[in-house]
Amino acid sequence: MRRTVPDVVIRRLVTYLRVLQELGESEADRYVSSRELGLRAGVSPAQVRKDLAIFGEFGKQGVGYQVNFLRQELSTILNLNRPVRLVLIGAGELGTALTRYITRRRARDDHYPFELLGAFDNDPARVGTTIEDVPVYPVDALVDWVRDSQVEVAIITVPAPYAQQVADRCVAAGIRGILNFAPTKLFVPPGVRLHHSDVSLELQQLAYYLD
Amino acid sequence: MRRTVPDVVIRRLVTYLRVLQELGESEADRYVSSRELGLRAGVSPAQVRKDLAIFGEFGKQGVGYQVNFLRQELSTILNLNRPVRLVLIGAGELGTALTRYITRRRARDDHYPFELLGAFDNDPARVGTTIEDVPVYPVDALVDWVRDSQVEVAIITVPAPYAQQVADRCVAAGIRGILNFAPTKLFVPPGVRLHHSDVSLELQQLAYYLD
Repeated sequence: MRRTVPDVVIRRLVTYLRVLQELGESEADRYVSSRELGLRAGVSPAQVRKDLAIFGEFGKQGVGYQVNFLRQELSTILNLNRPVRLVLIGAGELGTALTRYITRRRARDDHYPFELLGAFDNDPARVGTTIEDVPVYPVDALVDWVRDSQVEVAIITVPAPYAQQVADRCVAAGIRGILNFAPTKLFVPPGVRLHHSDVSLELQQLAYYLD
Repeated sequence: MRRTVPDVVIRRLVTYLRVLQELGESEADRYVSSRELGLRAGVSPAQVRKDLAIFGEFGKQGVGYQVNFLRQELSTILNLNRPVRLVLIGAGELGTALTRYITRRRARDDHYPFELLGAFDNDPARVGTTIEDVPVYPVDALVDWVRDSQVEVAIITVPAPYAQQVADRCVAAGIRGILNFAPTKLFVPPGVRLHHSDVSLELQQLAYYLD
């Protein structure tokens, strides 16, 4: 199952979950139709039904989906019904901003699964400090620390020339997923999932619609 | 045409362009097959051919696509063959990191179309300073400044509670596209294109593949 579901479906499931979370804050017990869910997620009702049908039958014909139930089911499908431990490498401006953001989200939302346990940097001025209670360690300690703390996902926010060697160290330490913010292509072995986040790609998509 | 092309196709065109740019640095005159382009972009050769066929015939059967030619064609389709003027609102850590990144990319890459002309903040300690030569102005001056400078795209990096009112001001000033980094849903009128960038959504997608 896990191999055959297209990435675009997973991306849409994440969006449905986001919509359900927004609804759930005030109206957890109510039902939502595929029409409303689709409207809020920006896809057709048929697409909503087709995506969810891949994983099971979650709604009732003519009634829709119970918000809290579907939210829990989607969390389970997406592997988000348990804490996901993170490490961040590169505690510059972007890394600091992301550390604060993730830590604050986690502090105020019990359902937020992401837990950032440590940041790493090679600048002696940063090592030994904390960002929102997240300690900043030296990069040389990365491999041992990741192994000991059983962190699964690494966020890479180092300058581009250092990104591949940091990724290699993460892989060597047993990291299973990497979210790369460095503006460079990275290579990881099969079995490690790599996502790339790049503001330039987003701006390029946006530009198309300006005509 | 512009309305009927699905967003996912545009996203893939941006990826093809990125691949061509990587190839073009060293091998601009050579040809690339749909197989190689697909392999590097992470999609099937048939998908590459299908996506490009929406916009015209750019390759030769059995030979492939000429790298520099296809790059220029994709730039034109994506509306990237001219400068795209940007403004950023919220010069905190994330805003500063993005300002530096965009400005440095622009300085070292002649083909990079994005030009960040000004940053805005409401913190008197930041107003009047510069980030990589980009001036930081007070938010109260935003509407007049955007009108005068004919900026098309706004990057919003203010805290969530302020994001909607900043978006409203951008729209009032004539902004055509918004890239929102604030972790909140925004509403904009038809005709304004809104993209949302959220590290939580990316982490949620990544988590699925950790099982």
